[in-house]
Amino acid sequence: MSPREIEVSEPREIGVTELVLRDAHQSLFATRMAMEDMVDACADIDAAGYWSVECWGGATYDSCIRFLNEDPWERLRTFRTLMPNTRLQMLLRGQNLLGYRHYNDEVVDRFVEKSAENGMDVFRVFDAMNDPRNIEHAMAAVKKAGKHAQGTICYTISPAHTTEGYVKLAGQLLDMGADSIAFKDMAALLKPQPAYDIVKGIKDTYGTDVQINVHCHSTTGVTLVSLMKAIEAGADVVDAAISSMSLGPGHNPTESVVEMLENTGYTSGLDMDRLLKIRDHFRDIRPKYRNFESKTLVDTNIFSSQIPGGMLSNMESQLRAQGAEDRIDEVMAEVPKVKEAAGYPPLVTPSSQIVGTQAVFNVLMGPYKRMTGEFADLMLGYYGASPAERDADIAKLAAEQTGKKLITCRPADLLEPEWDKQVEEASKLPGFNGTDEDVLTYALFPGVAPTFFEHRSEGPKNVGLSEAQLKAEAEGTTSAAVSGPISYSVTVGGTSHEVTVEPA
Amino acid sequence: MSPREIEVSEPREIGVTELVLRDAHQSLFATRMAMEDMVDACADIDAAGYWSVECWGGATYDSCIRFLNEDPWERLRTFRTLMPNTRLQMLLRGQNLLGYRHYNDEVVDRFVEKSAENGMDVFRVFDAMNDPRNIEHAMAAVKKAGKHAQGTICYTISPAHTTEGYVKLAGQLLDMGADSIAFKDMAALLKPQPAYDIVKGIKDTYGTDVQINVHCHSTTGVTLVSLMKAIEAGADVVDAAISSMSLGPGHNPTESVVEMLENTGYTSGLDMDRLLKIRDHFRDIRPKYRNFESKTLVDTNIFSSQIPGGMLSNMESQLRAQGAEDRIDEVMAEVPKVKEAAGYPPLVTPSSQIVGTQAVFNVLMGPYKRMTGEFADLMLGYYGASPAERDADIAKLAAEQTGKKLITCRPADLLEPEWDKQVEEASKLPGFNGTDEDVLTYALFPGVAPTFFEHRSEGPKNVGLSEAQLKAEAEGTTSAAVSGPISYSVTVGGTSHEVTVEPA
Repeated sequence: MSPREIEVSEPREIGVTELVLRDAHQSLFATRMAMEDMVDACADIDAAGYWSVECWGGATYDSCIRFLNEDPWERLRTFRTLMPNTRLQMLLRGQNLLGYRHYNDEVVDRFVEKSAENGMDVFRVFDAMNDPRNIEHAMAAVKKAGKHAQGTICYTISPAHTTEGYVKLAGQLLDMGADSIAFKDMAALLKPQPAYDIVKGIKDTYGTDVQINVHCHSTTGVTLVSLMKAIEAGADVVDAAISSMSLGPGHNPTESVVEMLENTGYTSGLDMDRLLKIRDHFRDIRPKYRNFESKTLVDTNIFSSQIPGGMLSNMESQLRAQGAEDRIDEVMAEVPKVKEAAGYPPLVTPSSQIVGTQAVFNVLMGPYKRMTGEFADLMLGYYGASPAERDADIAKLAAEQTGKKLITCRPADLLEPEWDKQVEEASKLPGFNGTDEDVLTYALFPGVAPTFFEHRSEGPKNVGLSEAQLKAEAEGTTSAAVSGPISYSVTVGGTSHEVTVEPA
Repeated sequence: MSPREIEVSEPREIGVTELVLRDAHQSLFATRMAMEDMVDACADIDAAGYWSVECWGGATYDSCIRFLNEDPWERLRTFRTLMPNTRLQMLLRGQNLLGYRHYNDEVVDRFVEKSAENGMDVFRVFDAMNDPRNIEHAMAAVKKAGKHAQGTICYTISPAHTTEGYVKLAGQLLDMGADSIAFKDMAALLKPQPAYDIVKGIKDTYGTDVQINVHCHSTTGVTLVSLMKAIEAGADVVDAAISSMSLGPGHNPTESVVEMLENTGYTSGLDMDRLLKIRDHFRDIRPKYRNFESKTLVDTNIFSSQIPGGMLSNMESQLRAQGAEDRIDEVMAEVPKVKEAAGYPPLVTPSSQIVGTQAVFNVLMGPYKRMTGEFADLMLGYYGASPAERDADIAKLAAEQTGKKLITCRPADLLEPEWDKQVEEASKLPGFNGTDEDVLTYALFPGVAPTFFEHRSEGPKNVGLSEAQLKAEAEGTTSAAVSGPISYSVTVGGTSHEVTVEPA
């Protein structure tokens, strides 16, 4: 029995980053929340006392132009206007920006410059491989723009990942001028003890002045405890989502973070009255998006399988398409082998899809008989360095199958200048408005941008349920009760009829 | 900044009490789970390595005879048979047993004796007022039966409740021979720091050998952290519910407790493979009961209002019945005054209803112009001692309005022997089976027992959705879409018909 003594002399203020405008609805209902459902909460969010408000990122940008017919830059400017007193924060995929490939440095510069100009304050810059070289240029661009550059570590568990390794990575990010370090646990894998050890390791090594932000999802049910332990180890800011938009695959509830800290020697300094108003706002909004909601409540499977939920369902649907759904157990057994061969990349977008698809290929066609282009690229260094050595024989095979060479440099060093070409192509699109912001939209999402530009003038589209639909559902007397063709036997005046009913 | 050092030399085993068979379904869907939906999980529960399995209590007993047409004693015997290696645990309301009034000591003796005989191992004995005199006789009866007597402290927050007070109460329970102390946080009010302080206070005062069990609900979202802090302070056993039956107004997920402890210097010793089987079983069962489900996800309101959710909705419906729903704010402001006048009783059944109803009366008719019989009894000592002094003037008024005297003795000391009368009355009921168990059922639930005895032979009734209903709902093409007779005006070929449709 070793109770830990409390020796805190006066409350230390812990900052909170509110996630409701970005990661919360991304995790809970596929990033579908329309701007019109957020604006009325902004005044309270602005006044609540958050350290920052995360409100922009790859998925929100994508969803804006793909589903919501909203200009993501307009969304950013609106946030800036409605929350003048708040640090606006975004998630940036390093050299990938908000897209799915590496961009030339000039594109990175322009994107960061425009984001800063439109109102962004804090750039949380990460790379799925945790390769600092993929983060470095974006960080420099943020610093050049005079904004807060947050160097980010993606957390995963593997034989190649140790407390010491994470501490070392934090040092590399600090060396490139990071204003703070974010520790990003996107799969809710971070348990209390490693949370404590890693944060303490960074503080002990680089000094208590180094600001550490901790981001956890709540999927496995343990991470509020991890946030507490991170705070005890010295973390400065923790991420949370207002309670009505929390838990499941989302995040820990903001109000619970506030209450948790009472009398512990830490305090959030948040205004609970404002929080409750924000909560009520989104409590009323959330049901509109129920058709996009995930069913997950708590899931600790990932601790043993190491396979995130989204990756599993991807592999299942790939097998189903091949009529081989009975081979999922073989694929699940193959994943750790592929992961090891690839040098233990964290399994997040896009590495999770790349590893998962190759595992499916290996089971269906024999080990590495055929590699996907993306897996070959991963093995040949085109996504950056892996956390551990990659399998040299499989890398050789990848070179043979693709005719590509193995590289060890920063992948973006091989890219040609592309800005002028992007401008030229974007300029030809109907509806292009002539701004650099539109060029960036095209550069990031060349497949979606043309349609968006063409239809932008039609204005935002809300994909949630309407008030009338919600009311009808609540009353249970509704045309929506009949969601597909239903056959009834209907008797009228003694005569029976077969009647089929479906929504008009 | 004051990180707390880890100085644990080797893992200390933390016991876990599984709540899925009692409090989990009581909190999540009004105690409606039928025994047939539990039996198939019992082998895995029995083998998982729990410290105990809570499976019986007032609400399960009540629900068995009121809704499920199950004999609660038969349920207990079935659990005993199916889980031969497990400590079965029940929640006992001290001198109230499983009912809503104080019983004569002989009835208490017989109830405990029969429960032990039918298979109960651990008796968690509590009193809503935290008056040890209401617990003492039941505790003695448990010890006489050779079973585990767990003295219980109900946690609440009030000016009359301090860490020192809880530590003192634990001492009184130990003095009456408690084999362990349960700390029961039924409203999810227990924050991390008091959890640490109180557990540490008890261990420091009475020795580390004193076993402490901690029970928290999860409603406010903070209590898994509280369990961690309680463990760090020396708690021996924590309560949890398997993840598929966790969170909301329920409890923290069992698997999350296991994972949380990894490498912390503590370990649960639970078998995760078994846990996942238990989880899958109840994941499949839970949707059957969705019509009874609470909608609460996280709610921190109780920290500021001090009014539990159930109490609030009670008061609202009382006001509505009087056409005075607009006066809820006045009533909410009145509650703290009534609570103070009554000497700060914890607000749990039945004190929450008693205080709430009196607050409504005070607002509608003027302060204490008319007292409910129950509130007068509370003021006059008939529920036991209050945590703090009661208002003497209002107590005097209660005596005047009711003609009753203020008492300071143990309330049950005033009760006449009643066993023979209970036997006599029960014996006359159709369907009475002649056992002491049936007499107890009648004594505890005199209003419900007669109907139950009469219909018992019809066998258990499952109030959940059937598999066919669930399947139809899942497919969305369903006769269940029309849940009652609906009249349509249908026009076909220009002729209008009144048509009524209902499920075939």
